[in-house]
Amino acid sequence: MTAPAPKPKENLQETLQQVVRILNRHRLVENLVHKQDMHKHALVETIVHKQNLAELEKRLEQLHPADIAFVLESLPLEDRLIAWGLIKPEIEGDVLLEVSDSVRETLLADMDRAEILAAAEHLDTDELADLAPDLPQDVMSELMGSLEEDERAELQSALSYADDQVGSLMDFDMVTIRDDVTLEVVLRYLRRFDELPHHTDKLFVVDNDQRIKGVLPIKRLLITDPDRDVSEVMAHEVVMFRPDDDAGDAAQAFERYDLVSAPVVDSTHKVIGRLTVDMMVDVIREESEAEMLSLGGLKEDEDLFSSVWQSARNRWPWLAINILTAIFVSRVIGLFEGTIHQLVALAALMPIVSGIGGNTGTQTVTLVVRGLALGQINPSSARRLIVKEHAIALLSGVVWGGVLGLIAWLLYGDFQLGLVMTAAMILNLQVAALVGLLVPLTMDKLGRDPAYGSSVFLTAATDSMGFFIFLGLATIFLV
Amino acid sequence: MTAPAPKPKENLQETLQQVVRILNRHRLVENLVHKQDMHKHALVETIVHKQNLAELEKRLEQLHPADIAFVLESLPLEDRLIAWGLIKPEIEGDVLLEVSDSVRETLLADMDRAEILAAAEHLDTDELADLAPDLPQDVMSELMGSLEEDERAELQSALSYADDQVGSLMDFDMVTIRDDVTLEVVLRYLRRFDELPHHTDKLFVVDNDQRIKGVLPIKRLLITDPDRDVSEVMAHEVVMFRPDDDAGDAAQAFERYDLVSAPVVDSTHKVIGRLTVDMMVDVIREESEAEMLSLGGLKEDEDLFSSVWQSARNRWPWLAINILTAIFVSRVIGLFEGTIHQLVALAALMPIVSGIGGNTGTQTVTLVVRGLALGQINPSSARRLIVKEHAIALLSGVVWGGVLGLIAWLLYGDFQLGLVMTAAMILNLQVAALVGLLVPLTMDKLGRDPAYGSSVFLTAATDSMGFFIFLGLATIFLV
Repeated sequence: MTAPAPKPKENLQETLQQVVRILNRHRLVENLVHKQDMHKHALVETIVHKQNLAELEKRLEQLHPADIAFVLESLPLEDRLIAWGLIKPEIEGDVLLEVSDSVRETLLADMDRAEILAAAEHLDTDELADLAPDLPQDVMSELMGSLEEDERAELQSALSYADDQVGSLMDFDMVTIRDDVTLEVVLRYLRRFDELPHHTDKLFVVDNDQRIKGVLPIKRLLITDPDRDVSEVMAHEVVMFRPDDDAGDAAQAFERYDLVSAPVVDSTHKVIGRLTVDMMVDVIREESEAEMLSLGGLKEDEDLFSSVWQSARNRWPWLAINILTAIFVSRVIGLFEGTIHQLVALAALMPIVSGIGGNTGTQTVTLVVRGLALGQINPSSARRLIVKEHAIALLSGVVWGGVLGLIAWLLYGDFQLGLVMTAAMILNLQVAALVGLLVPLTMDKLGRDPAYGSSVFLTAATDSMGFFIFLGLATIFLV
Repeated sequence: MTAPAPKPKENLQETLQQVVRILNRHRLVENLVHKQDMHKHALVETIVHKQNLAELEKRLEQLHPADIAFVLESLPLEDRLIAWGLIKPEIEGDVLLEVSDSVRETLLADMDRAEILAAAEHLDTDELADLAPDLPQDVMSELMGSLEEDERAELQSALSYADDQVGSLMDFDMVTIRDDVTLEVVLRYLRRFDELPHHTDKLFVVDNDQRIKGVLPIKRLLITDPDRDVSEVMAHEVVMFRPDDDAGDAAQAFERYDLVSAPVVDSTHKVIGRLTVDMMVDVIREESEAEMLSLGGLKEDEDLFSSVWQSARNRWPWLAINILTAIFVSRVIGLFEGTIHQLVALAALMPIVSGIGGNTGTQTVTLVVRGLALGQINPSSARRLIVKEHAIALLSGVVWGGVLGLIAWLLYGDFQLGLVMTAAMILNLQVAALVGLLVPLTMDKLGRDPAYGSSVFLTAATDSMGFFIFLGLATIFLV
């Protein structure tokens, strides 16, 4: 291995601390110089300054690109760019591939055209395709021009697929063999390679037109008598993908069947690329992160050190929607101001009804989103689920609504108030179950991400209906 | 491959529909028979009945164990057990390993001692260790008794580690070689195997005491001249793990360094097991699911078809805590009943202050939980983060609080009410930022899962403080 050894987690934290210490020392010198009104170029000439940067450069040189990415992501912008300036051009491309989208933007913004082109030189076409969306248009066209014809075709093909399609994730680096040769021939053929593509656990067996006929697992190649023919040894049943398949589905297939690599074929079964488990792990991680972020109402990946303004922009769309629904909810309460004026206890009790509704509804949403992600929800199971969720809501409503009714009765000495509380809880939990089921199921039916936005709709419904039911019942029966 | 071919996703849904259709037909026959008062054993003799089950059995036989697991998970309990009864004992063990915990319980509950023992016979010791927690005590001891001595030692070692430790996930199936032989010798040695362990992408090079000296990647073995020695070709820098390492950290290392397999060593660097990427993918998936479920306040994996009673038990602990905090919040409002009585508009406006606080706080919690999971939060970055979150909260408070104050002024024609609204929003967003940061950071410091419970604490704080600040300010300045 020519790349530096990866570090286990503790060492990585230690490395990060070392980098931070050097950077702090560096900043100290800068401040000192600044105070003494020295010129910038005089500073650069300072021996201490040079020593600090040299030490940092040496420290970074020993790191695996993935570890450099981790260090860069953990540094605030200013320090990040100092460190980034010390990274060797040969591995800049690899580091760019490893960092998160928002950090990548900050790094690319700091590079000029020549630097970007130099970094891109060391990347494969599938890796270039990953970077492409973040590159300036003119750099991209210059890059395109510098490629060989077949590479350009690969890059264009990769760019023609959406982010969530297999085509955008496949690489073009693979070993194909014929089925009419012996394993000995295959072994000799492999020895002619300088290096095998990463994650090669099987060779793709193809016909003259590059159409897939089967795969030869390396495991089998190694244990079988070399005099036998590929055709006798190869596996005919192949898990393969189409470039327009959904990346999440492909990741699930990798997970389900414990795959390391798999061919991507076109409609004529011609092999056009390859998926590997490392990309699929990234898909799984990204999907679950996106789900979590969208449940929290965050539009996109936010760098911990993004500026206040950038972060606010990321968070405000959701906040704006929330404010709209909050105003609506407030107007619902406004309808009953007369009732509240007559019985102020209602104002204190009403958030209980809406809050518990929101919580039980969120549980339903979570389970439905998960069931959809795992593909376990189909028309017949959906019907059962609806019945079940309403039954649970009824049970919870009677039990916990009863408890809360009792507490309201004891607190305010008003038996009827307790009854209204219990009835409102039972009804609002039915609303929560219904909305908690319908919103994600409808989103999914419309082809949208069922996690995103479900909780806004849900809370808007459980809040407004919770207040409406509780205050409405109170208006009818209590005042 | 002797196992049936895996199915791509669409086919799997189709398969599921076929299974459901056969099961529906089966139930139809049963109902018919029931109506005609035929005896149960007469039913079993019915030709149609037999045909249905035979068709189902044949359909299931063609499936990969992971696909059978998917079908079983997607079926309601009654149908699931009918299908489960038709699975061949040889693959029952594999299916049990693939299904989720809650579904596994339902399947094991349906098996008698002899069936469980028969299924266990086809599993490796590391797989047995995965099933062990769900097996009845007496079955487990009988199983232990039936193992060879070294297998028993392996099983006991695997069982001695916690679920989230590397030791509970490693397998014992690996190929070790010496470094003083030629590659030719290694190739010949491999040919003596009937089968290589799954996911073998590297051979572990060890000394006489089984201590790791390096690894020989299969990729390198295949392209290198067979006359060279292992010692010249092997990689000395090895990513390895200890059995007491955290499984999540190991999964992150696999992700970061694109590993397929890695040795697990004891304190003397003796190789005692192996981690493979398929297990790590499961860890990543499970961690993200657990995070999502715990954000939703669900204690554990809940089967979509669990009984109402089981589901309620899973959801009620969180609900109970929520009810306690809701009552507390209600008492806070209760303090200000006099104020509300004098100015009923407050009752309508107060949920806006608490609701927006809860939402912005949730965004902070989500980002902190994610930063902690990625290991990006350390003392120096935490300080920056605190400053930044409070700055964003101030900005949001001034902007959105200003907008809401304006709306309150326009709605109720009371300028001072608008000012109180704005001031309350600004203050409550500061509370939200503080609690949103401190709760997950403290949880993490105490060694607990930062996601679990964070949102209960957060909402309790933003609700009670939101109401307190708003109604308190109103009491001082408005009435």
